[in-house]
Amino acid sequence: MQPDTLRAAALQSHARWRGKIEMAGRAPVATAADLALAYTPGVAEPCKAIAANPEDAYLYTRKWNTVAVVSDGTAVLGLGDIGPLAGLPVMEGKALLFKAFADVDAFPLMLDTKDVDEIVETVCRVAPGLGGVNLEDIAAPRCFQVEQRLQALLDIPVFHDDQHGTAVVVAAALLGALRLTGRGMTGLRVVVNGVGAAGTACAKLLLSMGVTDLIAVDRAGIITGAPEDIHRDLALRTNPRHITGGLAEALAGADVFVGVSAPGALTGDLVRRMAPDSIIFAMANPTPEIFPAEALAAGARVVGTGRSDFPNQVNNVLAFPGIFRGALDCRARRVSEGMKLAAARAIAALVADDDLCETHILPAALDARVSAAVARAVAQTAKDEGLARL
Amino acid sequence: MQPDTLRAAALQSHARWRGKIEMAGRAPVATAADLALAYTPGVAEPCKAIAANPEDAYLYTRKWNTVAVVSDGTAVLGLGDIGPLAGLPVMEGKALLFKAFADVDAFPLMLDTKDVDEIVETVCRVAPGLGGVNLEDIAAPRCFQVEQRLQALLDIPVFHDDQHGTAVVVAAALLGALRLTGRGMTGLRVVVNGVGAAGTACAKLLLSMGVTDLIAVDRAGIITGAPEDIHRDLALRTNPRHITGGLAEALAGADVFVGVSAPGALTGDLVRRMAPDSIIFAMANPTPEIFPAEALAAGARVVGTGRSDFPNQVNNVLAFPGIFRGALDCRARRVSEGMKLAAARAIAALVADDDLCETHILPAALDARVSAAVARAVAQTAKDEGLARL
Repeated sequence: MQPDTLRAAALQSHARWRGKIEMAGRAPVATAADLALAYTPGVAEPCKAIAANPEDAYLYTRKWNTVAVVSDGTAVLGLGDIGPLAGLPVMEGKALLFKAFADVDAFPLMLDTKDVDEIVETVCRVAPGLGGVNLEDIAAPRCFQVEQRLQALLDIPVFHDDQHGTAVVVAAALLGALRLTGRGMTGLRVVVNGVGAAGTACAKLLLSMGVTDLIAVDRAGIITGAPEDIHRDLALRTNPRHITGGLAEALAGADVFVGVSAPGALTGDLVRRMAPDSIIFAMANPTPEIFPAEALAAGARVVGTGRSDFPNQVNNVLAFPGIFRGALDCRARRVSEGMKLAAARAIAALVADDDLCETHILPAALDARVSAAVARAVAQTAKDEGLARL
Repeated sequence: MQPDTLRAAALQSHARWRGKIEMAGRAPVATAADLALAYTPGVAEPCKAIAANPEDAYLYTRKWNTVAVVSDGTAVLGLGDIGPLAGLPVMEGKALLFKAFADVDAFPLMLDTKDVDEIVETVCRVAPGLGGVNLEDIAAPRCFQVEQRLQALLDIPVFHDDQHGTAVVVAAALLGALRLTGRGMTGLRVVVNGVGAAGTACAKLLLSMGVTDLIAVDRAGIITGAPEDIHRDLALRTNPRHITGGLAEALAGADVFVGVSAPGALTGDLVRRMAPDSIIFAMANPTPEIFPAEALAAGARVVGTGRSDFPNQVNNVLAFPGIFRGALDCRARRVSEGMKLAAARAIAALVADDDLCETHILPAALDARVSAAVARAVAQTAKDEGLARL
């Protein structure tokens, strides 16, 4: 569909839907007897049971399957800080995908505050009815503090999808590309360009996965361990060869480029500085850091983007539905690095050896097997790590 | 169903349902083209439209039909302060009824705070995604302040159902009983026993409806205009004959008893002090202030209770679904006294003259005509009063 046609169709469709999600009843209310069970006087019984034993809330209510999609609307798509009201269509879309791909009951919670303390406080206050919290489109660096503090305060999974959903799918894509090109982690050189929410999480997850030579680059160049650098923690764990300079210096001989930065940030000349058979994930959206044809012409072997109209779409929908499904199913206290890695491996494993090729390193976004496989792997890892309550 | 049987069945049913509500998708996500419309990149278009014109949120999202059922769990049914987690089954039940009776998309928002400032602040912060707020089971007197402050701060309807839902249905029941017994407002003597959330709202709405001789009684007796009395405002508008004493003194010659108090608060002897053909609404639940048989034996002509197993069930479900449906349909700024009275009149009007009798002064709780009739009346009144934005 042409961009103009898509724009018009998207507006028309949204006006026709008047909301992409709605509530549905799960209990009958057709007779007085129905009302007596689901409402007064019968409803008093589960209330009393939960008052006596709070864990019973997971048995008698929807808490076990309910996720708030929480956003302040400050980093919505590529649109930036458009506010909580204007961000609502995205959060409804997220809730729609949660239900369609993993039968998770998610609803948007749009916050009219950008203050870290107030966001944390508000989510804690509404937590009794929730089984999990999906943070979404909250600008960096606020998103890091919000997530860390909520994880410390709540005993339900709190997951900032812009960070970890992206990181999991990038990790899965890298696993596929390494399998295809016969490379391992040893000696692998990776450059992450863009050190916002997604870039930071990608870098950390790749380090957890065994990458040892990773260089992170932001607008000012390769990040350093200088005390005043907000990326100091990450800098101290990266750039082992102590390269100085910018993206060009970082890319010399690199095997992998992970771009979560800006349209056009990568050029054919820069790709030519990389090692042969390089792997490029250019995820700026909708205009990537480099278009696949240009990267391939400059010597790249595998190119992924965030777009559905090119091969190897690196799309969060491969990760977040199954991760929450798995975490809710085993009633995980949180989503650990191990659970994210398990999710990445489960996604990558769904591409059979016979199907693996330069244009197919990941399952398709609509592959119905993905969320169940991810959920199984995530729940098993939570159990292995002692994070599961079921 | 016997109480023990009902208790067991209610627990079993809740465990089988595992939540009485869930989310449902309204947009297809079966193909890549579907995803491109409902999620990226198409979803950017409604976001941009809303950022440019906030009113478009009512066109492109579910805001127009979304109501949060907000509770701190401090006054749940007759169970009292059982907390937000244990109150969840009631709020899910409310959301279930909202959807079934009026196609309103309501979800529970259980608040882990009892502080007025924090409740108000929290609801304001999550308001961008909401079309209305139903306050529920928040203890008095906190509920009054919470509602007043939210009404002042938000431009969407805020409605404390324990107050106003009850008041509307009592008013409807009174209209039916007066029609049956051929009485009007002039000279009518009404006693309201119990001056908590529901009693206060009942008294105020009956005053708005034209009752001039109303006496409100709490545990300490007839309320007075003493400066230290928390009911001073109501006291100054009631008890025009300056009766002193307690319920017995108030009831001498009274036509109507409205009980939102405690089991057994009314006796046959007290009913015999009332005017002939008295009207009794004994709404303590599940055990009323007086059982119908005893009241009728003592001379009452019409008796209503909150229970479904006696005639004339005074049940909020007759009011709140239609009131919100009407308020949302016309995008009302708030729910006025006039809109509540219109709802009461619409409910009462659904009992045809031929059907009106001592055991049938109200439509049944499951009467499918009610919410649409209430919605029409409420929306029309909002328009007449200049409170509608559509």
